[in-house]
Amino acid sequence: MTQEKIRDLISRMILEEKAGMCSGEDFWHTKAVERLGIPSSMVSDGPHGLRKQDAMSDHLGVNESIKAVCFPAGCGAAASFNRELLEDMGKTLGHECQAEGVSVILGPAINIKRSPLCGRNFEYYSEDPLLATQMAGALIKGVQSKYVGTSIKHFFANNQETRRMSSSSEMDERTMREIYLAAFEGAITKEKPWTVMCSYNRINGVYAAENKMALTDILREEWGFDGYVVSDWGAVNRRVPDLEAGLDLEMPSSGGQNDKLIVEAVKNGILSEKVVDTAVERILNIIYRFEENRDESAVFDREMDHEKARKIAEETVVLLKNEEILPIIKTKKVAFIGKYAKLPRYQGGGSSHINSYKVTSAVEAAKGLYNVIYAEGFRDDVDQTDDDLLQEAIEVAKQAEVAVIFAGLPDAFESEGFDRMHMRMPACQNELIQKISEVQPNVVVVLHNGSPVEMPWEKNVKGIIEAYLGGQAIGGAVVDIIFGNTNPSGRLPETFPLQLEDNPSFLYYIGEGDVVEYREGIFVGYRYYDKKKMPVLFPFGHGLSYTDFVYSRLRVSKEHILDTETLKVTVDVTNTGDMAGKEVIQLYVADKESTVIRPEKELRDFAKVKLEPGETKTVEFELTSRAFAYWNTQIHNWYVETGEFDILIGKSSRDIVLSKTVEVKGTTKLQVKYTLDTTFGDIMKDERAMGILQPLMKLDIFADDKEEGVAVAAISKEMREAMIKYMPIRGAVSFGGDCTLDELQSLLDQLNE
Amino acid sequence: MTQEKIRDLISRMILEEKAGMCSGEDFWHTKAVERLGIPSSMVSDGPHGLRKQDAMSDHLGVNESIKAVCFPAGCGAAASFNRELLEDMGKTLGHECQAEGVSVILGPAINIKRSPLCGRNFEYYSEDPLLATQMAGALIKGVQSKYVGTSIKHFFANNQETRRMSSSSEMDERTMREIYLAAFEGAITKEKPWTVMCSYNRINGVYAAENKMALTDILREEWGFDGYVVSDWGAVNRRVPDLEAGLDLEMPSSGGQNDKLIVEAVKNGILSEKVVDTAVERILNIIYRFEENRDESAVFDREMDHEKARKIAEETVVLLKNEEILPIIKTKKVAFIGKYAKLPRYQGGGSSHINSYKVTSAVEAAKGLYNVIYAEGFRDDVDQTDDDLLQEAIEVAKQAEVAVIFAGLPDAFESEGFDRMHMRMPACQNELIQKISEVQPNVVVVLHNGSPVEMPWEKNVKGIIEAYLGGQAIGGAVVDIIFGNTNPSGRLPETFPLQLEDNPSFLYYIGEGDVVEYREGIFVGYRYYDKKKMPVLFPFGHGLSYTDFVYSRLRVSKEHILDTETLKVTVDVTNTGDMAGKEVIQLYVADKESTVIRPEKELRDFAKVKLEPGETKTVEFELTSRAFAYWNTQIHNWYVETGEFDILIGKSSRDIVLSKTVEVKGTTKLQVKYTLDTTFGDIMKDERAMGILQPLMKLDIFADDKEEGVAVAAISKEMREAMIKYMPIRGAVSFGGDCTLDELQSLLDQLNE
Repeated sequence: MTQEKIRDLISRMILEEKAGMCSGEDFWHTKAVERLGIPSSMVSDGPHGLRKQDAMSDHLGVNESIKAVCFPAGCGAAASFNRELLEDMGKTLGHECQAEGVSVILGPAINIKRSPLCGRNFEYYSEDPLLATQMAGALIKGVQSKYVGTSIKHFFANNQETRRMSSSSEMDERTMREIYLAAFEGAITKEKPWTVMCSYNRINGVYAAENKMALTDILREEWGFDGYVVSDWGAVNRRVPDLEAGLDLEMPSSGGQNDKLIVEAVKNGILSEKVVDTAVERILNIIYRFEENRDESAVFDREMDHEKARKIAEETVVLLKNEEILPIIKTKKVAFIGKYAKLPRYQGGGSSHINSYKVTSAVEAAKGLYNVIYAEGFRDDVDQTDDDLLQEAIEVAKQAEVAVIFAGLPDAFESEGFDRMHMRMPACQNELIQKISEVQPNVVVVLHNGSPVEMPWEKNVKGIIEAYLGGQAIGGAVVDIIFGNTNPSGRLPETFPLQLEDNPSFLYYIGEGDVVEYREGIFVGYRYYDKKKMPVLFPFGHGLSYTDFVYSRLRVSKEHILDTETLKVTVDVTNTGDMAGKEVIQLYVADKESTVIRPEKELRDFAKVKLEPGETKTVEFELTSRAFAYWNTQIHNWYVETGEFDILIGKSSRDIVLSKTVEVKGTTKLQVKYTLDTTFGDIMKDERAMGILQPLMKLDIFADDKEEGVAVAAISKEMREAMIKYMPIRGAVSFGGDCTLDELQSLLDQLNE
Repeated sequence: MTQEKIRDLISRMILEEKAGMCSGEDFWHTKAVERLGIPSSMVSDGPHGLRKQDAMSDHLGVNESIKAVCFPAGCGAAASFNRELLEDMGKTLGHECQAEGVSVILGPAINIKRSPLCGRNFEYYSEDPLLATQMAGALIKGVQSKYVGTSIKHFFANNQETRRMSSSSEMDERTMREIYLAAFEGAITKEKPWTVMCSYNRINGVYAAENKMALTDILREEWGFDGYVVSDWGAVNRRVPDLEAGLDLEMPSSGGQNDKLIVEAVKNGILSEKVVDTAVERILNIIYRFEENRDESAVFDREMDHEKARKIAEETVVLLKNEEILPIIKTKKVAFIGKYAKLPRYQGGGSSHINSYKVTSAVEAAKGLYNVIYAEGFRDDVDQTDDDLLQEAIEVAKQAEVAVIFAGLPDAFESEGFDRMHMRMPACQNELIQKISEVQPNVVVVLHNGSPVEMPWEKNVKGIIEAYLGGQAIGGAVVDIIFGNTNPSGRLPETFPLQLEDNPSFLYYIGEGDVVEYREGIFVGYRYYDKKKMPVLFPFGHGLSYTDFVYSRLRVSKEHILDTETLKVTVDVTNTGDMAGKEVIQLYVADKESTVIRPEKELRDFAKVKLEPGETKTVEFELTSRAFAYWNTQIHNWYVETGEFDILIGKSSRDIVLSKTVEVKGTTKLQVKYTLDTTFGDIMKDERAMGILQPLMKLDIFADDKEEGVAVAAISKEMREAMIKYMPIRGAVSFGGDCTLDELQSLLDQLNE
């Protein structure tokens, strides 16, 4: 529908209808206006499958949904480092929505993984904003190519579940821009999601729902977002200020109470009706964008989509450790141990929970193909060792040539709604792994979990596979990797620390009452571990392959560029092993010297390429100013400081294999104002200032004639120089300068002109 | 002089004389007013000796001072953990001042050691505010017992030298109170220093010199300080606001410029003359307190004081490591290697620099008593291995049965005025230690440094002695410890981290421009390392002895107390070895559960006792509410939260040997205000609130009838419970509550009455 027609429609709506349009009819639908032919429109939970509640909808939206296909959760999806794969997954989801008449699928959920404890990490993508935003962008692109909307969420700084509806995420401007907003920015500016979901929490004291800075200034004015903003379910705080801040659609509803407040506010002149009109226009735009592009022929082919889920799952699995044990020779007798071999944990609880129409376990996938025996090993409903199960598992492990233990986190450990209290796996599972490793030298652990765990047994096993929460087809994907039909190609989208205490947010995570201070600032994930030179269990970007990749010929298009130019970076990658495989090439940029505090390096691009044995491909990256910039709080904008930058090509944040230095010249000039408190050192850095303040430099304190006495004096040459460098201009009057404060001030005035 | 007489004197001064009284005549003297008989009064640098500049005074105050005695610097003094020792040192300094006519010795300097890099750490006491303030208090008590003033400095948050005259130390209220102010608080309230020196830096944007919160609200009104505040030399920013904020005496001077500003401000009615009168009164009080208590008989007996310096030095030495190598049998052939064996580094550069009248080196102290051979080993004026010196040292080491290497930081590495750039020792010294350890299995390293260093060779040597900057008599003290005439009893007043990056302030240290964010907050030193469970090189409080101490019978006077009561804690300590020695008993308190973020434990008291072999002593501590309290930012006061606390007795922060739990009941009630944003979980914790909001609890969302469906629903029981717990009251209208916002608000109003 044209803008004109939509505006005409709005002009014919009465105020009550318009206010009503701004909240849900029920848990999942917008309101219809029958007399004007405006249809009700359905949204459904996502984002790694369709959680469509039909008749079974309830007041908390928690009951069973229709049978659907569960794809890998965000944790795994991001681990693929494969944009095309996510786009393809998006297309499949979009098609399912068309088939089911769902206008918007709620996702992707891409909040930064600040702490491993966040209960919702399994849905989220990464500790790195670039990876998160690019992978999210790909998913959005795929879904929306089917004329179905997405709702990137939860906007923003919603990084824990504890007190999520009242806590305030408190951070500095740079951290907000470089980390928490950046995770949304690229996906929104580049892929234009139809909707954005605002989060429950406050940001620096102001609820996301009524945060004009977030919902209007940044989202719409800076980033050009033109869809509607929907509240997370129940996130509306004060309806009228929320609407004015830019929150268009309240979900689910307040039983009409908030609609009434809108009507009253307009009638009382507190709220401009234009604000309501604008919100309605945005909502109708999206409703009609879907309605007018319905694909009536679409069919939800669950079997086909299950196969897609399996192919996607293959790329989400990360091979963490492999001491010549994987892939397992197909004829070997292998013990599959652990409940999750038969009942994989493949998704998390909460709004993303899919009612899977079928689930393939590893045991099922291996049946008839490999010589596999099975033992349950542990219970996951209680964290207590079941001695019978343990004994049986030990016996089974002894009978086999290799033991593969399927372990991980039980449902009760990670879920939407609450955070983990620690980073450990259940003690009974750790004990099982330990005991098995004592009787069987060849142990592989397959992990099903949505977030890092501590691995006290890491040194005692030969192989570790991180299967994340890989969706309903994960069993087949894992079996193919175990036996070498698939070459693993996932990479960690997050650091696995050795212990929870190592995490940068540890000291202040969860906060005090409703105040959560993000004191680690920009030092999230590898930005922290790398700068602090801390040992980690597995670094960001880490992931092994069954083949070997060699990098060579790193080249840059120019060695000196302006920040207005684009830098082309190319590198050759060769598969030197004897199995085809995919490699993730990671490009980090390091500012060699900076006047602001910066991470040691930051991920600025990545590529995934498939290589046959012996094959070489040239990978090309294009870096623009953003790759060198930091958020400058003086100009409130991205800013490139002139200087040298290292372009680093790595296999992980801790495995940099090639590097090259370029010089970037920043073209933005920052203003400086000199005062009596400005130090001599700062003046000396500025040629013009030195010119004007030259008379001062003749002051007695700069005289070298005391040099002789220095050897017996209290201070060294170094201290003397430092004293002068750090002395404010006004210090001249206390330390022998033959001048007045007025004279100094007039020189400064001249300088500041 | 009585207050009355001083006020009379002031009443007879003209405004210009009064303004003149508020700044120095020259670098070290206040102005005399001859017509009224007001004498000029001299202050001198300290604090670990007298740096009195006479005729040689110069405009930077850096030239040579009179010959004096250099005692151990603050780093070592604090390591003694011996209050009586510091008091005695103070008495000696006070006596020297009387002999030299110095009214105030500038010190002690007790800023918290936030980072090992701070150039002035060697002067400072500790990373722990309790240790710093109690040791400083003891020194103040000693000096002032001789009717000589002290000037505790630098008040406050002056924790780096970089840009020290312009940078702003930015921190939250609790950190300010619990760490940076606490380091001053006890010494000031208990020992009443005659003067306080304000620091150069800004605190949260406001210069210390014009910081009314610091200089008046806290220092005088809360803490009852009644002396004068003097500016650090050149710290005055804007003279008139400074004076109003509580900065009485400007040093050195502005050549009369600032005095004129004061006069003008009074004449223009901008400044009340009463403010000037008050400042003058405070200054005259101190001048006359000294003048009227002159000890004309006092003589500066340098030889006697040198002996005192030696006795003090003995207790400042910390035995860090001892693998059955120390003490060295007296008849053994021992190689003393390293320049510092002959020319010990025993003090740092800057205002605390003493012109020592003599210095005893280890070589000199050992001469004629032990079988010692010597090699210089390294140069310390350049960081480059001198191959000849290295070769000679290796040869000498081979000839001996034990090699003792005297190493450490050269003068150019640590000094007032600038910070270290790294935490390493010179590469040439590390190489020397490494090479010696390759040819000689019995190596002891003696370190002369004012702040922690990295020790890459730690595993390769059998003994490590931290001699800090131990003053001019350190050589004799070290030799006595090496050969077992003295049993070492120093303890680390700071953590030695494994690497600089481990330090809590590392990411934000030195800051950006003039902004230094103290983001680690209260987690300074062991408060950080212990909570983060980080490995350290040597923990806070660590120090070995040549004998063994066993702790037993930890008792508390009561197991349940009110926070208004005093808890007596006693513990028995037995010397079970066969050498007399001193033990430092450390008492830490840990809050077992808290609604605010707290350190794992905090030092709350300590004692040092001397025990003969076989002897047992009972040590008694008294804990008041402060030992259990944190600074509460709602009431802006110390606050004890009811709950269990562990009383921990340790030999270091990482070696807790006994513990006992007590329950403390807080008697201060915090006010709570309920709003629509208050969560159901918070309501449920409050009985009265539950009573009034009971109607709400009947809401549909609390109904248990959905339990049956949970197994197939998207959410677990845990998530359902968490959803409700974290849901704001207002959420009732979105999630099936049959109520209006108005009804909810009226219930809340009732509750808040």
